[in-house]
Amino acid sequence: MDVFGHNGKILRVDLSRRTFEEEQVPEILYRRYLGGGALSLYYLLKELKPKGDPLGPENLLIFAASAVTGTPALGFSRYTVAAKSPLTGGFGEAEAGGWWGPELKFAGFDAILIKGKAEKPVYLWIKDGKAELRDASHLWGQLAAETHAMIRKELGDDRIRIALIGPGGEKLVRFACISNELKHFNGRVGLGAVMGSKNLKAIAVRGEKKMPLFAPEKTRAVVKEVLEAYKKNPGTMGELGTARAVMALNAGGILPTRNFVSGSFDKAEAICGETMRDTILVNRGTCYACPIRCKREVKVDDPYKVDPLYGGPEYETIVALGSLCGIGDLKAIAMGNQICGAYGIDTISTGTTIAFAMECFEKRIITTKDTGGIKLEFGNAEAMLQMVEKIGKREGFGNLLAEGVKIAAEKLGKGAENYALHVKGQPLPMHEPRGKTGLGLAYALSPTGADHLEAPHDPTFASEAGLKCILPLGIIEPLSALDLSSKKVRMFTYLQNFYNMFNSIGLCIFTAVPFGPLPPNALVDYVNAATGWETSLWELMKVGERHSNMARIFNLREGFTAKDDTLPKRFTDVEQIPGNKKSKVPLSKMMPKYYHLRGWDSYGVPTKRILKKLDLEDVVKT
Amino acid sequence: MDVFGHNGKILRVDLSRRTFEEEQVPEILYRRYLGGGALSLYYLLKELKPKGDPLGPENLLIFAASAVTGTPALGFSRYTVAAKSPLTGGFGEAEAGGWWGPELKFAGFDAILIKGKAEKPVYLWIKDGKAELRDASHLWGQLAAETHAMIRKELGDDRIRIALIGPGGEKLVRFACISNELKHFNGRVGLGAVMGSKNLKAIAVRGEKKMPLFAPEKTRAVVKEVLEAYKKNPGTMGELGTARAVMALNAGGILPTRNFVSGSFDKAEAICGETMRDTILVNRGTCYACPIRCKREVKVDDPYKVDPLYGGPEYETIVALGSLCGIGDLKAIAMGNQICGAYGIDTISTGTTIAFAMECFEKRIITTKDTGGIKLEFGNAEAMLQMVEKIGKREGFGNLLAEGVKIAAEKLGKGAENYALHVKGQPLPMHEPRGKTGLGLAYALSPTGADHLEAPHDPTFASEAGLKCILPLGIIEPLSALDLSSKKVRMFTYLQNFYNMFNSIGLCIFTAVPFGPLPPNALVDYVNAATGWETSLWELMKVGERHSNMARIFNLREGFTAKDDTLPKRFTDVEQIPGNKKSKVPLSKMMPKYYHLRGWDSYGVPTKRILKKLDLEDVVKT
Repeated sequence: MDVFGHNGKILRVDLSRRTFEEEQVPEILYRRYLGGGALSLYYLLKELKPKGDPLGPENLLIFAASAVTGTPALGFSRYTVAAKSPLTGGFGEAEAGGWWGPELKFAGFDAILIKGKAEKPVYLWIKDGKAELRDASHLWGQLAAETHAMIRKELGDDRIRIALIGPGGEKLVRFACISNELKHFNGRVGLGAVMGSKNLKAIAVRGEKKMPLFAPEKTRAVVKEVLEAYKKNPGTMGELGTARAVMALNAGGILPTRNFVSGSFDKAEAICGETMRDTILVNRGTCYACPIRCKREVKVDDPYKVDPLYGGPEYETIVALGSLCGIGDLKAIAMGNQICGAYGIDTISTGTTIAFAMECFEKRIITTKDTGGIKLEFGNAEAMLQMVEKIGKREGFGNLLAEGVKIAAEKLGKGAENYALHVKGQPLPMHEPRGKTGLGLAYALSPTGADHLEAPHDPTFASEAGLKCILPLGIIEPLSALDLSSKKVRMFTYLQNFYNMFNSIGLCIFTAVPFGPLPPNALVDYVNAATGWETSLWELMKVGERHSNMARIFNLREGFTAKDDTLPKRFTDVEQIPGNKKSKVPLSKMMPKYYHLRGWDSYGVPTKRILKKLDLEDVVKT
Repeated sequence: MDVFGHNGKILRVDLSRRTFEEEQVPEILYRRYLGGGALSLYYLLKELKPKGDPLGPENLLIFAASAVTGTPALGFSRYTVAAKSPLTGGFGEAEAGGWWGPELKFAGFDAILIKGKAEKPVYLWIKDGKAELRDASHLWGQLAAETHAMIRKELGDDRIRIALIGPGGEKLVRFACISNELKHFNGRVGLGAVMGSKNLKAIAVRGEKKMPLFAPEKTRAVVKEVLEAYKKNPGTMGELGTARAVMALNAGGILPTRNFVSGSFDKAEAICGETMRDTILVNRGTCYACPIRCKREVKVDDPYKVDPLYGGPEYETIVALGSLCGIGDLKAIAMGNQICGAYGIDTISTGTTIAFAMECFEKRIITTKDTGGIKLEFGNAEAMLQMVEKIGKREGFGNLLAEGVKIAAEKLGKGAENYALHVKGQPLPMHEPRGKTGLGLAYALSPTGADHLEAPHDPTFASEAGLKCILPLGIIEPLSALDLSSKKVRMFTYLQNFYNMFNSIGLCIFTAVPFGPLPPNALVDYVNAATGWETSLWELMKVGERHSNMARIFNLREGFTAKDDTLPKRFTDVEQIPGNKKSKVPLSKMMPKYYHLRGWDSYGVPTKRILKKLDLEDVVKT
């Protein structure tokens, strides 16, 4: 093989021993795993012993960009953080866009593998191929923005990119996140707590290296074509951000409202993308090399002070802190978003956990005695904001909620479990799985617990127009959102491979079709032009298939079984549209079909055959 | 779906009722099957009842081009003839290049489905979308060249393309072939006999229709790029033809010699490509749109009259009628080739069947009493030529050999079976499977019996250079020709899908890498530009996978079992290099791995799961 032209290098950090090690990664690993999620799984399966404490020094925390991160195409800005999750006890993976991933590459590394625990708070500083651990005692306890500013100041460089945790991560909130540039989040599964458990406050990166391109002209040609396609048909993502979906979902009766009791919210208009644009939006942000600029930057002066420094709420946040809590106040949501950002806690899990508590409050499972006097009622914005901060600080009732809905519900008892809407411990994101059979599968089967970036939402692909974008996968016929045939399960499986590949190559779904301008075949062309590989969609899809199988093996090692591939009863047993039985998720019918399609046995265990087929037989040996 | 821009039309012919029917083929079938082998299997499985007589009127004879046949790229000249094989009793498929396939498309049809039997000899004449059956009583019994000339003359058009049979097909020689333009052969599995059994002497086609291209400029750009690559690195295929391989194989000890008893032939130089070029070659022929011109045209005046009209011997023919019979006389081989062409019998099966008889003669299982006085000794060129003609005429001992080695050996008894080197009734082609584990699998597993176009020969892909060409399949590591790991079986399986896809889209392996200039990704680009599909290698590979599964189902219906996935004992039990146990084909070790990889059960039966995955559940219902 030719030597792959990029860094081809990972950095190993042992925080306990304060040592660094550089490792050359054979090109074959890049080809098999690309980077991100799949490459992280490779190292986790090889090097992390099962059944360890996710918040113990033994956990292996990985930051991984991909083979093409930092090359000039739009959309490849994302990097993965992975470890054993303190929220689920299983595989933990979260991607973030922004600027940190490309900068890591410019600094000379494709990935960082971190083990051990620093004796006292530190941060990691990587510049132009050199790494050092620096004292972070003065940063410990600081909010995100302050931390960010202090590090930039003391390193004397405003172009440093910083991935960091807030007090939430320090205090091991089980859904603490990691942010970069304050606005981009490795949001889910509590990887901020893993950082906190290691006394690692931040990773600052800076480098001057330019990514070599195998065929610069061809690379530019693909980018140009994609940009031109975007200009011709820009859609509304740039103008309205992810919140563009609010009104349509509400009209369809599938806007998660009051802890998923309803799908319609009477104040939807007050919190939608159009309203944000017309009121609190002051700027549009973006990620490395991306012209779409879907990120929001909002400013509120009254009754709260919301600073554009923390960006603005995404769709997920608007719904989680908004309609899911029965709150129709965009300013309060923006404030909640800022508190989450400052404390470094995942907005989806935070909102869902509060909505859970609100339903418990409504059902009188908890009262103001439990909440420290807060009237945790649906629609009470002030109560929501207080709870967000209390979670970030692990204060009072917030200390219980910081354990996540699953543990909190178990501790509360009295039937609270019925209102804890999670899969494998991770709360559902803001998409209603009832009436969308593929999404139900996605939630139930995601190795990281309920996740909306595990596979696309079926309605998009239920139309010929939506489907056209993924024709290269051989999915030729549109399938209704309610379809539960083998064909639907197959479409889901293929799209799950596809999205897992995105999460390995670090590609944003909003730049890829059908949400953005980059079609699958242009993706292949781009990878070939950038790397000099002669790859194909056939080979790239196998990366996604590897990812699924490796994540499955990771969870099986940790004790998960097929019984964990499920959804809260609210989604399988309660009709979303009363009187319409079809609007329950028919999970039991679809699951065996999925296992069969994956080449897993009836217990959901990958067979030796499929592992050999994917070159994983050595990787999964324990 | 957009309506596919080509013909999208098949012609159904009922010879018994003398009726025609046109049928519009839904575009989804083209996408799933492309054409050729896979499309033929679709119709055979749907419409041919199992266990019928392959030489009875019930057999369904299919001529099928593909979605892109007749478009301007090099290499897409091939069309498939398929039916139940009278040689194997299983799936019969044979491809031929030349000009007939494109002309069928120009005449308005993508495929012809023929059933029934004409009362008396007829030929089919298709011009510009119109079909008629014409009397062929005067053509019956005529050799190929005479038939060809007479049809052209009576239809008054020298640009007519004709697929026809010779007396071999009329007399139901079980390995009779079909030729077009006298030089291109649907050689194997006896489809000429199926034509003969239907009293169908020929199919003449002519049309003025031009194939519409979805994106003409992009189509031309791909063609241009491929042609430029070819000009830069033309290799030796044009200069030496397929016979270029003779000397290298002989040097490697794997040139099939004296019925595979040896792999070295002392007269190899006398029959090699270089010698042909320097002696009897008078011209180089080619197929539609192909600049490679690998076809030979040879002329001999003495001691035989060999006319360039019949082209010249390919590698397979040179070895089958040459070294395999111990014959080192190129002129005799050229004469044998001409007789085979004139009588319309497959040169590979003819040569192998004669070599079998020669070994029987050597072992005194037969004597001159059986052969009508012919001394059937290895090396006896005159005896070989006499036997070729006798087979074509089904005369004397030739009448027995015309049944094929399997039946002939059974009838002879006395251990003759040990020298009948066939799989599923079809004799081995001229590549030594011992010491090439992948080729052993290819022969044993080919649904049409031993076939050298079922998957490529592993030594090509055992080098990094050879492998580079198929990198898009994700086969990254070269594997030795002797490798028998799961990886080798996987490589074989992928390449089998790949080649089955070629046989469905009508692509010649000598234009595709590593033998020619067309790489897999350019193939994808070309198909997209020509058809307007947004397909990918992922989807195209599935066509090949469908082909394998459908052919398997066809054979299972006919009574074949896993026991038929085998090789003659000579290859599994006898060392090719004496003393080297590795030089036997380790079939029993590899077969279960193959079934597993295919998603077949341990009896080699495709599981419901894999059939659903490939959208075949309705197709294979019987």
